[in-house]
Amino acid sequence: MRLASVRRTEPAAPSAVATALAYARRHRERFVAELGEFVRFESVSAEPRRAGEVSACATWLAGHVRSLGLSEAQVVPTPRHPLVRAGWRRAPGRPTALLYGHYDVVPPDPLDVWRSPPFVATRRGNELYGRGTSDDKGQLFAHVKALEAYLRTAGRLPINVTCLFEGEEEIGSPSLESVLAGHRGAFSADIAVVSDTPMLGPGRPAITYALRGLLSLEVQVDGPRRDLHSGAFGGAVHNPAQVLCDLLSTLHDAAGRVAVPGFYDSVRPADHAERGMMARTGPSGTRLRRDGGIEVDWGEHGYTPYERTTLRPALIVNGLAGGYRGPGPKAVIPARAQAKLSVRLVPDQDPEEIAERLEQHLTRITPPTVRVSIERHSGAPPFVMDGEHPALPAAVAAFRAGFGATPVFLRAGGAIPAVSMLRTVLGLPPLLMGFGLPDDGIHGPNERLHLPTFWRGVETCIWLLAKLAGGSEHEP
Amino acid sequence: MRLASVRRTEPAAPSAVATALAYARRHRERFVAELGEFVRFESVSAEPRRAGEVSACATWLAGHVRSLGLSEAQVVPTPRHPLVRAGWRRAPGRPTALLYGHYDVVPPDPLDVWRSPPFVATRRGNELYGRGTSDDKGQLFAHVKALEAYLRTAGRLPINVTCLFEGEEEIGSPSLESVLAGHRGAFSADIAVVSDTPMLGPGRPAITYALRGLLSLEVQVDGPRRDLHSGAFGGAVHNPAQVLCDLLSTLHDAAGRVAVPGFYDSVRPADHAERGMMARTGPSGTRLRRDGGIEVDWGEHGYTPYERTTLRPALIVNGLAGGYRGPGPKAVIPARAQAKLSVRLVPDQDPEEIAERLEQHLTRITPPTVRVSIERHSGAPPFVMDGEHPALPAAVAAFRAGFGATPVFLRAGGAIPAVSMLRTVLGLPPLLMGFGLPDDGIHGPNERLHLPTFWRGVETCIWLLAKLAGGSEHEP
Repeated sequence: MRLASVRRTEPAAPSAVATALAYARRHRERFVAELGEFVRFESVSAEPRRAGEVSACATWLAGHVRSLGLSEAQVVPTPRHPLVRAGWRRAPGRPTALLYGHYDVVPPDPLDVWRSPPFVATRRGNELYGRGTSDDKGQLFAHVKALEAYLRTAGRLPINVTCLFEGEEEIGSPSLESVLAGHRGAFSADIAVVSDTPMLGPGRPAITYALRGLLSLEVQVDGPRRDLHSGAFGGAVHNPAQVLCDLLSTLHDAAGRVAVPGFYDSVRPADHAERGMMARTGPSGTRLRRDGGIEVDWGEHGYTPYERTTLRPALIVNGLAGGYRGPGPKAVIPARAQAKLSVRLVPDQDPEEIAERLEQHLTRITPPTVRVSIERHSGAPPFVMDGEHPALPAAVAAFRAGFGATPVFLRAGGAIPAVSMLRTVLGLPPLLMGFGLPDDGIHGPNERLHLPTFWRGVETCIWLLAKLAGGSEHEP
Repeated sequence: MRLASVRRTEPAAPSAVATALAYARRHRERFVAELGEFVRFESVSAEPRRAGEVSACATWLAGHVRSLGLSEAQVVPTPRHPLVRAGWRRAPGRPTALLYGHYDVVPPDPLDVWRSPPFVATRRGNELYGRGTSDDKGQLFAHVKALEAYLRTAGRLPINVTCLFEGEEEIGSPSLESVLAGHRGAFSADIAVVSDTPMLGPGRPAITYALRGLLSLEVQVDGPRRDLHSGAFGGAVHNPAQVLCDLLSTLHDAAGRVAVPGFYDSVRPADHAERGMMARTGPSGTRLRRDGGIEVDWGEHGYTPYERTTLRPALIVNGLAGGYRGPGPKAVIPARAQAKLSVRLVPDQDPEEIAERLEQHLTRITPPTVRVSIERHSGAPPFVMDGEHPALPAAVAAFRAGFGATPVFLRAGGAIPAVSMLRTVLGLPPLLMGFGLPDDGIHGPNERLHLPTFWRGVETCIWLLAKLAGGSEHEP
C-alpha cells in the first residue's frame, strides 16, 4: 500500500500546516463571501430549464480552483450536466487523494416556506442560509479552501490531489460511471475522500462507514383521456388519483414494514455487535425526532429510529400530483395522477431486483379500469466501507486536530451513487468524512450551514492533506 | 298561476318570433365573434389572482346587455365576485322569467394539454374551443342573443325578463344566497330558467329534472415541521403523502361504494318506475364511456353508469398534492400533503351531515404520527324538479321548435347551487334547459361549444320567450 510506504519517509515541513491553518483563520469571512457567490448559481440538476445555471456554476467553480493554482482545472461535459475536474500532481512519490463533492443542488421548492431567497446566501447569526450551503457546496468548498490555504502559503500541496466535483449527484449520477470509465487516468488516485455526509452534531465529527442504496422511480396512473367534470362523471369513472392512493396504500403494512412481496428477501440480517455499537454511538431517537421536527417517530417494529434510517430499507413517497391543486375547489376527475417514489436499499438488496419486485406488485394489483406505468429514474447500490481503509488513520487524526474530538463511526441513510462507482470503476476505496449537521435542513426549505463547523471543516481538510502526507506535526 | 291565466289572452304578434328568428340566423357569425370576446376574460372564480378578470368580465357583460336594450343592467358587488343583473319589465300583465347563467369558469389547467390557448376562442370546424365556451358563457349567451333578436326587431320582449348572471358558480355560489335575500324585489319573477346543463346529444334536447348536491372540502395531512431528506429520515418518519394515500384509500370499498360509515343512511331508495324511464331515455353505458374517453367504466355494483352519475352519490378526489412534482427525482419527505375532495349528494343527503360523517371517519383513522385538518369549501343540497312546473309546456314547445325534437327528461350529476337558492330564497320553481353536449369537455382541457347546437339554442331561447307569453305561432 503506497500510503503506508510514504508515511514515515517524507514528512511535510512542520511549519507548513501551521501556516496554512493561520491563513485559513485570517480569511474565514472571505471564504463565506465566496461560498455565497457559489450558492448564487441555481444549479438544480433535476430541472431542465436550469441546465444553463448548472453549467455556469461548473464554469465558475473550475475558474475558481484554477485561480488558486489547480492548473489542471477543467469542465468535463457529460450527456447532461458537466463535472469539474481539477488536479495538482507535483508531489512525485507522494500519495494521490481524489476529493469528491457535488455542486448541483435539489430544487428549492416549496419556495413560500423560505425565510430568505434560496439562492441568496443569507447569514443569520452563526448560520448561512441557502440551497446547497450544506449539501454540498459548503462541504465541497471546505476542501477547496484547504487547498487554497496550502497553495497560497507553502506554494504547494503536501500530496497529490485530484478534485472531482460532480453536477448530477442529486439526480442519481447518471453520467458519472461512463465519465470515470472513459478517463481512468485523469482520475487515478490512491484513495478517495467523499465529503457529503453529516457529523453527529456540532463538535462531534463522524466517519460514515455505510450508506443506503437508492432506487428512484415514478408511478403514473392514467384513466380517462382527458380531465372530466366530476359531477357529470363522478361515480362511474375510476379516478386515477383514487387508484394511485389505493396502490400506494398497499406498499406498507400496519407494522411499518414495506409490504411488497420479496422486498426483504435479500436484506442481510443485522449484526448483533454492530447494533450494540450503533446504540452507543449513534443518534438517539430523541435526537432524530428533534432534528426532523417531529413529535412521534414511526417505522418498522423492532428497530430504533437510527436503525430504521440506516440499517433497514425504506420506501418513501417523495411527491404526489394529480388533478387540481390551486386555490379553492375544482370539480374535476383528473386524467392522470403521479407519484415519485424512492427506495432506500441495504445490503444485499439490488436496485434492479427491487425495481422489478415493485413493478410486479403494482402491475399485479392495478385494476383493469386504468393503466399504470412505472419509470425508473436512477439506482445506486448500498455501500459499506472496507474495515481496513488505508486513509482511516489520517482521517481520524485530521478530525481530532480540526474538531478536537475523535470521530464516531456512523451509518447514514442517504445514498451517494459516486461512492460505489469510485470503488467499482476506479478501484478506489472511498472514505466518507462530511461536515454537515443533522439539522442543516438539507433538501428542505431554509437549508443552512453552521459556519463554525464549516471553518473547522476547512482546518480538518488542511490537516487531512498533512496527515495523508505522513505529517507527524502535533495537533494543537 | 299567472302564466296559465296569461296564456290564451295575449298572444305575441305572429310575426314577431319569425322576425326575431330570421335576425338570429343572419347574425350567427357575429354572435360567435362576440362570444369570443366574452371568452377572452379569464374569469376564473377559484383563483384570487384573477379576481380582476372576473370583475372585468362582469363589467363587459353588463355593458353588453345594456347596449342591447336591457336598461336595468348593473354589476352587483358581493363579498367576492360580482353578479350581473339585468332586466326588461315593460310588459305589464305578462309573466316574468328569471334567466340564470354564470360567467365564471373553472381554472384552465392542465395548460399543456390545450391545443389552443384556453382564453382565446378558437374555431375548428363546427366547434368553438375555449374555457367557458360551453360551461357556461356559451349557454348564457344563447339567452342574451335571443333577447337581442327580439329587442332589435320587435323593439320589445313578449314577456318580462330578469337576467341573473353569476360569477361564483364554480366555487359553490358562496355569496348568492345573501344577495338574493337582500334584493328579493329586483329578482322577483314567476319562474326561473337555468341554462347550465347538457342535452343528450346533438339534436337531442333535454330538460334536467334532478341535480346531485355538492360538498367540497380539502384534507391536509401535516407531518414533520419541514420537508426532510428522505435518505436521512426515510423509514423513521411517518410520511404525510403516504398517510394521505392511506386515508383516501379507505373511502371506497371493493364494490365501488363509498366506505364512510353512515354515508348511505339518508339516500332515498331508487324508484322502480324512474329507473325504467332512465334506462329507456338516458345515456347508455357505451355513450357515457365514449363521452368520458374511458374504455371500462367503474362504480357501485348494481347500478348503470347513468344511475351511478345521477341517482347515486359519489365521492371524488379532485386533486392530490404533496412533495416534489417537478421533473426528475427529489429525495424528500414532504412536510404536508393535501387532497381536494368532493361529494355528489342525492336526496335526502344533507351536505352538513355528510361533511361531519366524513370528518369523523378521517379523524378516527388518522394515526397519532401526523395531524389531519379538513376545510369545507362549499355545499349545495340535491335538487329534484316539481313535476308540475308551470313553464314546462313552454319549454317543451320551445325545444321542439328550436331543435325539431321533443326533449327527454334527464337527471344530471353536477350541482348548480343557485337552483336550490332560487327555490328556497325567491320561491321560484327552476326549470333546467341547457344547451351543452356531453362531450363538450367542460372542466377539462379543450372545452368546446358545438356551434350548430349553440345557434339552435339561440332559436330555442327565442321560442321560449314567445311560448312563455302564450304565443300560439306554429313551429316551423
